[in-house]
Amino acid sequence: MRTSREVHTALQSGGPVVALESTVITHGLPAPVNLETARRLEAAVREEGAVPATIGVLEGEVRVGLAPDELEALATRNAVEKASLWNLAAVVARRQWAGTTVATTAHLAARAGIRVFATGGIGGVHPVPFDESGDLLGLSRTPVVVVSSGPKSILDLAATLERLESYGVGVVGYRTKHLPAFHAPDSPFELPATVWSEAEAAATWRAARALGLESATLVFHPVSEGLPYRQVKAWVDQANEEARAAGIGGKDLTPYLLRRLSELSEGRTDAVNLRLLEENARLAARIARKLSA
Amino acid sequence: MRTSREVHTALQSGGPVVALESTVITHGLPAPVNLETARRLEAAVREEGAVPATIGVLEGEVRVGLAPDELEALATRNAVEKASLWNLAAVVARRQWAGTTVATTAHLAARAGIRVFATGGIGGVHPVPFDESGDLLGLSRTPVVVVSSGPKSILDLAATLERLESYGVGVVGYRTKHLPAFHAPDSPFELPATVWSEAEAAATWRAARALGLESATLVFHPVSEGLPYRQVKAWVDQANEEARAAGIGGKDLTPYLLRRLSELSEGRTDAVNLRLLEENARLAARIARKLSA
Amino acid sequence: MRTSREVHTALQSGGPVVALESTVITHGLPAPVNLETARRLEAAVREEGAVPATIGVLEGEVRVGLAPDELEALATRNAVEKASLWNLAAVVARRQWAGTTVATTAHLAARAGIRVFATGGIGGVHPVPFDESGDLLGLSRTPVVVVSSGPKSILDLAATLERLESYGVGVVGYRTKHLPAFHAPDSPFELPATVWSEAEAAATWRAARALGLESATLVFHPVSEGLPYRQVKAWVDQANEEARAAGIGGKDLTPYLLRRLSELSEGRTDAVNLRLLEENARLAARIARKLSA
Ligand SMILES: [Mn+2]
Ligand SMILES: [Mn+2]
Ligand SMILES: [Mn+2]
Repeated sequence: MRTSREVHTALQSGGPVVALESTVITHGLPAPVNLETARRLEAAVREEGAVPATIGVLEGEVRVGLAPDELEALATRNAVEKASLWNLAAVVARRQWAGTTVATTAHLAARAGIRVFATGGIGGVHPVPFDESGDLLGLSRTPVVVVSSGPKSILDLAATLERLESYGVGVVGYRTKHLPAFHAPDSPFELPATVWSEAEAAATWRAARALGLESATLVFHPVSEGLPYRQVKAWVDQANEEARAAGIGGKDLTPYLLRRLSELSEGRTDAVNLRLLEENARLAARIARKLSA
Repeated sequence: MRTSREVHTALQSGGPVVALESTVITHGLPAPVNLETARRLEAAVREEGAVPATIGVLEGEVRVGLAPDELEALATRNAVEKASLWNLAAVVARRQWAGTTVATTAHLAARAGIRVFATGGIGGVHPVPFDESGDLLGLSRTPVVVVSSGPKSILDLAATLERLESYGVGVVGYRTKHLPAFHAPDSPFELPATVWSEAEAAATWRAARALGLESATLVFHPVSEGLPYRQVKAWVDQANEEARAAGIGGKDLTPYLLRRLSELSEGRTDAVNLRLLEENARLAARIARKLSA
Repeated sequence: MRTSREVHTALQSGGPVVALESTVITHGLPAPVNLETARRLEAAVREEGAVPATIGVLEGEVRVGLAPDELEALATRNAVEKASLWNLAAVVARRQWAGTTVATTAHLAARAGIRVFATGGIGGVHPVPFDESGDLLGLSRTPVVVVSSGPKSILDLAATLERLESYGVGVVGYRTKHLPAFHAPDSPFELPATVWSEAEAAATWRAARALGLESATLVFHPVSEGLPYRQVKAWVDQANEEARAAGIGGKDLTPYLLRRLSELSEGRTDAVNLRLLEENARLAARIARKLSA
């Protein structure tokens, strides 16, 4: 595991650092939007006064903080793995390249001494028996602030929230009492706690540390201009129906659903996705500054 | 986190201390029974020769051991939160008051150096998909003896026992080979181990520590004079039927079921509840004394 | 917990040691095949240049490395417990004898400083709601290499693989891209990573340690001469049908299914079982040697 000089220097001096994940670059967005977005997120973190630390695996080496040419290499390369906690060590041992998932990035960030991590949406419970993201249990064991816009839209939101409770993952809404639903800023599901400021989010993290809680502190941040919950849900339901009718399942299901969501919304879900990524990076930077103050 | 002088002194000298939870005070029992019961449980622990340490959150401060006026304040105050592991840090950060659940109390007790904790019933698997108490995974990570009368009656007992096995939570029956079912001292479900004395319960805890097991040691203690398992199950089934017919679900379901249980049993479940709480406090105190000897 | 002199000496000098479990001796195989097999597995480990450490509980004492007479005593004794993580401490406290399950053996091996453990098959998700082996979560918390031939044949393989992902357990196929299915060397289920040599398996373990991952590294090793996946699946399905028709369930189900598998295959599943146990012991020894080099 290698930390860039800039990130290392910032951490040494207790300065604000924000970890960013890389599956959004390697698997989540098409080229060239992926590289543009990765750059924009780093720039957004800097504009808010923090140091970005994009995390990925380059030729078997875990890297915390990427130079511009490294970011480009990761974004443009073919045959890049997706490193979850269950295959991360093998990816490293076999000298592969990989984007890192939410749980993996959170783990590596915490290990590097970074306290705040921004992403788009977290994984959760799929509406398929036993298909539950490693993010859920992973986050229950990883002491880091994770800023996201909620579980990804295609997930079973109610079940995902139950699992977060069952696994004891710290959860707060940022200025919302309901679970934000990724593309939708609102949903019918009540959160167990709300923070009304960056200072309160930072205080929640400090309290968790003082009390010896090992879980992440999830800060659910509703996107500023999103889509109506019922509309997104209707698209997701329709896409699931179509997949069932066409016999699409297994590993093909999630990419199919995301593509159909984009088509059904005439690209509006894509625009919201980019917006929330940047907004989360900014909020994470402001929370990181509170924690450094 | 602040430990009372009395509890601190007892812990320093290796003396017996029993942690008590506070959601039974803030959410489990109506006034004025809640405060009376809290006092009676503390008195019962003292009568058995141990120091009680009721745990709660007062204006954002975790308190281990409450003075009489603090206990009263917690019992009589309005708008008190229920602090599970997923919202504990936020409750503290926001300077709120809260009763602490089984998993939260166990965590805080262990952190304070207390080895034995008494409660009424533990949480578990509800007969609703994905509704599983944070007690289950929480207890798999918290090295403390927990004395209870089994999972609460409205839970899916078989599924709860399976989860305890799946999560590797240490489980013993106290002088019983079957899972006690809270209001009922017996059930058809076999336990993996039985202890026949306080000394054996204490030895189980010591063995767990010596072997590096991080889970709780659950001591399931059948209530001395309870209700027949089939009778309680029939009431629970009836109450669930009624709830379904009346469209009651979500957060309203558990309070509804408990109220109906009380009504259908003509108050007998309430009497049993108070009895088992005191009996568990006494057994916990005797185990704590064995551990201090 | 007592480590034999031979195992202790090997560990002190950084030499290769392979842990072996004992439920295969106490519960998995009938006499006298159980003792013969236990001896053969130890001999196989030695032939590959490593020191075997069979782990079991003798009269309440956890033993790491058994002398020949102790192995015989464990194999021939009546009324021996099966120590899973949820009853291990009670077994020790009550001075009982026990075979140790996969999760328990892995935990004890790691605690003794042993890095590699060989077994036949791991536990997983049964096709009965909530019946999930403690091996799954246990292995997510235990840093040890576990060589097996996949989940046992009577399990829900797809669900078991999902749980391994959800729990972040490190998984690699040894020279296979598909999950081996115990009696069958192949199955339709894709693994997240493959290693092509003992050196790569060892490197995966080292990477996991360097990255602070606390989970096991499961090395799934297909049996050299096994049975066709579809054939085994057909037998398992038939046996489950028969059990349902005969009203066999609960604790009686697994023994019934295994006996019927043996009968339906005319003993071929038994032969494969012995073969894979030895092959796994040999591969584990070779990986242990790589880790010692
Ligand atoms: Mn999945
Ligand atoms: Mn619940
Ligand atoms: Mn089971």
